[in-house]
Amino acid sequence: MTQTSAYASEDAAKFETFKPLIEAYNKDAVDQMQQFDPEFYTKCVAAVPSAEILDSEPIDATKFWSLLSSKEQAIVGDLAIADLTQKQLDGELTALEITKAYIKAAIIAQLTTNCVMQFLIPEALQRAQELDEYLKQNQKLVGPLHGVVVSLKEHMNYKNKITTASYVAYLKNVPENEAVTITILYKLGAVFHVRTAQPQGIMHLDTLNNITGRTRNPRSTRLSSGGSSGGESAVVAMHGSVIGHGSDIGGSIRAPAAFTDIFGIRPTTKRISLMNGLSSGKGQESIVAVQGPLARSIEELDTYMRAYINEGKPWLYDPMCLPIEWREPKLPAKIKIGVLYDDNLVTPFPAVSRGMKETVAKLSANPEFEIVNLNPKWFSEEEMIDIYTTNLRLYTCDGNKVQLSMWSPSGEPLLPLTKHYMNFGGGKELSIYENKLMNGQRDALRVEIFQKYFSHLDFILSPTYNGPAEIAGQSLYWGYTSFWNLADYPNVTFPVGVAHDVQKDAEVPNLRDNEYERMVWYNENNEIKYDPKNYIGGPVGLQLTGKRFCDEDVVAATKKIVSILGVERR
Amino acid sequence: MTQTSAYASEDAAKFETFKPLIEAYNKDAVDQMQQFDPEFYTKCVAAVPSAEILDSEPIDATKFWSLLSSKEQAIVGDLAIADLTQKQLDGELTALEITKAYIKAAIIAQLTTNCVMQFLIPEALQRAQELDEYLKQNQKLVGPLHGVVVSLKEHMNYKNKITTASYVAYLKNVPENEAVTITILYKLGAVFHVRTAQPQGIMHLDTLNNITGRTRNPRSTRLSSGGSSGGESAVVAMHGSVIGHGSDIGGSIRAPAAFTDIFGIRPTTKRISLMNGLSSGKGQESIVAVQGPLARSIEELDTYMRAYINEGKPWLYDPMCLPIEWREPKLPAKIKIGVLYDDNLVTPFPAVSRGMKETVAKLSANPEFEIVNLNPKWFSEEEMIDIYTTNLRLYTCDGNKVQLSMWSPSGEPLLPLTKHYMNFGGGKELSIYENKLMNGQRDALRVEIFQKYFSHLDFILSPTYNGPAEIAGQSLYWGYTSFWNLADYPNVTFPVGVAHDVQKDAEVPNLRDNEYERMVWYNENNEIKYDPKNYIGGPVGLQLTGKRFCDEDVVAATKKIVSILGVERR
Repeated sequence: MTQTSAYASEDAAKFETFKPLIEAYNKDAVDQMQQFDPEFYTKCVAAVPSAEILDSEPIDATKFWSLLSSKEQAIVGDLAIADLTQKQLDGELTALEITKAYIKAAIIAQLTTNCVMQFLIPEALQRAQELDEYLKQNQKLVGPLHGVVVSLKEHMNYKNKITTASYVAYLKNVPENEAVTITILYKLGAVFHVRTAQPQGIMHLDTLNNITGRTRNPRSTRLSSGGSSGGESAVVAMHGSVIGHGSDIGGSIRAPAAFTDIFGIRPTTKRISLMNGLSSGKGQESIVAVQGPLARSIEELDTYMRAYINEGKPWLYDPMCLPIEWREPKLPAKIKIGVLYDDNLVTPFPAVSRGMKETVAKLSANPEFEIVNLNPKWFSEEEMIDIYTTNLRLYTCDGNKVQLSMWSPSGEPLLPLTKHYMNFGGGKELSIYENKLMNGQRDALRVEIFQKYFSHLDFILSPTYNGPAEIAGQSLYWGYTSFWNLADYPNVTFPVGVAHDVQKDAEVPNLRDNEYERMVWYNENNEIKYDPKNYIGGPVGLQLTGKRFCDEDVVAATKKIVSILGVERR
Repeated sequence: MTQTSAYASEDAAKFETFKPLIEAYNKDAVDQMQQFDPEFYTKCVAAVPSAEILDSEPIDATKFWSLLSSKEQAIVGDLAIADLTQKQLDGELTALEITKAYIKAAIIAQLTTNCVMQFLIPEALQRAQELDEYLKQNQKLVGPLHGVVVSLKEHMNYKNKITTASYVAYLKNVPENEAVTITILYKLGAVFHVRTAQPQGIMHLDTLNNITGRTRNPRSTRLSSGGSSGGESAVVAMHGSVIGHGSDIGGSIRAPAAFTDIFGIRPTTKRISLMNGLSSGKGQESIVAVQGPLARSIEELDTYMRAYINEGKPWLYDPMCLPIEWREPKLPAKIKIGVLYDDNLVTPFPAVSRGMKETVAKLSANPEFEIVNLNPKWFSEEEMIDIYTTNLRLYTCDGNKVQLSMWSPSGEPLLPLTKHYMNFGGGKELSIYENKLMNGQRDALRVEIFQKYFSHLDFILSPTYNGPAEIAGQSLYWGYTSFWNLADYPNVTFPVGVAHDVQKDAEVPNLRDNEYERMVWYNENNEIKYDPKNYIGGPVGLQLTGKRFCDEDVVAATKKIVSILGVERR
C-alpha cells in the first residue's frame, strides 16, 4: 500500500538542521515547569516512572494526583466550572489559587502523559492576578469563565508564541494574530496555562509527533490517549485543566474523549470559530473541521458551549460563524433512540459491544427512553464500504499536496499513522469533477440520514470507536466518528462506566470479510491480532448523535443518559 | 480565446433528433395559453408585434396591459401581497379571480417577452379553487401566501413535470421529487401558474436557450431581461406574477431585477432551500448558489422572506438549511453607507454613474444617512483584477466537465454567452490543490471585507451591473454582482427611478486599461463600442450589501432608501 513517491517530503539531512529548534522548544517546557516550583518539580520527577516504563506498562497515571496537596486535589478534582466561579465570587478561592493548582496538575499530567507542547505559566499567573484584581475592584466576574483554566490545542494561533501544529517546519512560526476562539475565551474570563499536543499532520486518532513525541493515556499509560486532540484528552483526564479546547475533522475530539473516559462534543460545523489557526485544511470544504470542548462532565460541556456561543458571539469576530444561539434544549417526553451496535462495516471489540449492551439495557428499562435497534435498517455493509471509501478519498483528495508542502521544508520523517492517513483512498489526487461527484454523494447521504432516520428518531447511539482506548500507534479505523464528519451531524462522546476486561472481553465475535474489518482484526499473516491483554485499563466511550444544529438537545439527552448510568464527573 | 476542444459536446446531428421534443415542449405552452381563453389569446396575438419587431425595437411591453380588463389590471397592478390576502379574507376577491387575472397577465408577458418555459394553468386553476374552498370552510387562510401567484424558475424540480434547466438533453427528465422550496411555498398558500426561462447552462446574465429562445426586457423589448433568472424578472415586471422565485450564483437574481426595474434579493447562503433541482452546481462549494425572490416592492420581498423562513422553516425539510429565523431588523439611528461608485475594475456606463450620483445626493441630504465614499479605500485595480480572475476561475474550476456532461447527450449548439462563460479564467481545469488555495483567498477576502469595511459601515451601495439593462447577448462582466457571491454577503437590488437617457448618458468617461474594462467598453478593433442609442429604455438598478446573515437589515435599509427616492411599487 505504501507509495514511495508520496514521501518525497522526507529529508533526513534537512531534518537534522531542525533538531536544535526541537530541543530548544522542549527545553522551554521543562524550564517553565522547573521554574514554577523547583521543589514540586523535583518531587514529581522522582515519583513518576521513566518514559520506558510508562510506555510499556498499563499504569494508571491518576494515582500521581497524590503529589498534590489535598487542597490542590480538591480544587482540581472536586470543583466544576459553576463551583469555581461561585467560590471566587464568595471569596473562598482566588483565580491565582485555582491557576496554581491547575499548573501543578498539568505538570503531573505532562510528566506522566507528555500531553503538553508549550506551557504558558508566567502568562497564566499574571492573568489570574489580573482577574483577582478585577473581581476585587468590581465585585463581579469578568465573565462566565472567570478563573476557569482552559487548555488549548496547540494548532490554534497564540499571539507572539511559536505555533507549529506539530509541523517541525513551523518551529519558527510566531503568529501576530490570535485564534478568534482564544480572544473570545479570554473575554469570558478563561486562564490559559498550556497548549497541548497533536499528532503529525493533525490526522491520527492518536498523538505522536516529531517535536514532542508520544502522548500517553492517563487511564493506562501504554495505551493511546487518542487524537488528534490527544493532548487535550490527557490533560483534562489528568485534572490538568477544566476544559480542553480541541478540534475534530474525523473523530479528533471524540476518540480522545472516549479513550480517556471523559466527555467531548463535535458540534455542528461553524458554531465555533476556526479563524486564525494552523492546519492543512484551509480551503478544504468536502469535510469541514470543527472545534469543541473536552470536559469531565456533560454539565460543564453545556456551560462552556452556552458561554462561548451566547456570550462570546463568535459571529461578531468571524464572518464564517453562524449567528445561532445556544438555545434551551427541547426533548420529547419519551426520547426515541436508534441503536447502532455496530456500523455494519467494522465489528467492535468485545468491550465496546459489552458497553453498548449494558448501556442499552439500562436505557431500555427507563420509561423516558424508547430504544430501537437500528442495525437492520442501517446502510448495508456494501453501502458502508462505499460511504467510508468516499469519506477516506475526500480526506486525501488533493493527493496530500498541502500536507507535503507543510512537511517538506523540514524534511521531517513521516510516522506510520501519517503514512496510513496519506494512503486513505489510495492517497490519490482527485479531479475537481470527481470531488464534486463525491460531495454530491455526501449531500445525498446527509439528506438520507435526515429523511430515513431523523424523521422518526431523536438520537442515534453508537460506539465512538471500534475498540476501547487503542494501543499506541494502532488507531486505524476512523469510521465510527468520521461518518458523522462526512454527514455533519453533531454528537457527544460520553463515558458509560465500562472499561475493557481481560476475562469478559476475550472472545472474538463473528467477523465480516471486508478490507476494513481485516485491517482492524487481522495481522498481515491473516491471523487475528486482537489480544485482550493489550487493552487493559482502556475505557469505552459511546457516541450520541442528533439532528443538525440540535447540539443542545444532544447535550441534554446525554445528561439524562449519564444520570441513568450513574456516570459521575470524572 | 475560443477553445475548440472544449466544445466537443456539440453534435448537430444528435441535436436534430431532439427537435421534435423541443417542438412538443413549446407547443404545450401555446396550447395552454390558447385553451385557457381562446378569445383573449387571439386578441393578444393580434395586438402584440412580431418577434422580429420586438427583438429589434425598444418597445415598452407594459403598454399591452391594456389587453386586460380594468378589474384585471387592478388585481395584477395595484394589490400587493398584503392586499391580496386581506381582500380574500374580506370576501372581496377569490383566489380564482386573482389566479385568472395573473394567468392573463402572464400570457401577455409571454407573448411580449417570451419569459415562460412551461405553463401550469390547469394546476393553478384547480389550486385556486381549493384555496377558495378552504377559506370558505375554515374562515381562514391556508397561510401568509394564500392565493398569491408565484412564478418558479424552471430548474426547480416540479413533481411529474418535465424539468430541463434549459438543457435540451433533459427534455424527457420528469422528476418524482419536488423542490423543497415549492413544497414550502405550497404549504404557505402560493399558487403556481408558470415556470420561467433560464439561459443555457443557467450561466448567462441574460436569458437565451435552445429550447424556448430569448427572453426580452419588458421595459424595452430589444434589451436583455437579464439572467439567469431573466424569465422571472420579465414575468414579474410584466405583472405576470406577484413574486418570482429565482436563483443566483453570480448575479442571476440581481442583474435581472436591475435590468427590469424591480427588486431582488440575494440572501446569505443556506437560508432558502436549494434541495431537489437541476443545475451543474451539485457538489460545487467554492461559490455557493442561493435562491431568492424578485418582487415589485421591497415590502413584498420582506413579506415573502419572512413567510418562507419563519413559517416555512426550510430546515425541517432540508438538512442543508440553517435554522435562522427572519428576525426584526436592527438599524442604527444614523445609517452609515459606504458608496462604491465604481468597483475600481470596470467603469460603469454613464446612466449607472448618474443613478449612483442622484441616489447618493438624495441620501446625503437626509439626516438618517451618513455617506462615505468608499472608492479610495476599496481594493485597488490590481487587487480587483486578482479577485475577479479568481472568481471566474472558480466558476469553471472543473474545466466545465459537469456542464459538458449535461450538454453532451443532446449535442445542442453552445451559445455565444455560454462560450463566454466557459472561457472564464481560460476555462482551465484546476487541481484540487489550486482550488483549495483559491478557496483560501476567498475566505481571506470575506474576512477582509468584514474587518476593513463592515467594522465601521452598515451597508455598501454600488451598481448592480456596469450598465443599465444590457443589449441582448452582451452581458459580459459579472463583477459587480459576482464579487458578493464569492464573498457571500447578502444584498438587495432596487430601482432608483433612473433610466438610460440618450442625451444625458452619451459621454464616455475616462477609462482604465485592464482586460475587463477593454472587454466591456471596446470592440475587437480597439474602438469604443459604447453607443448610447443601444440602451434606450434601460433602467438602472443599484445594489445594497450588508453583513452576513443580516439580510433583514439590508431589506429594512432598502425600504428607507426607496422611500427617500420616491420609488413606488412597480
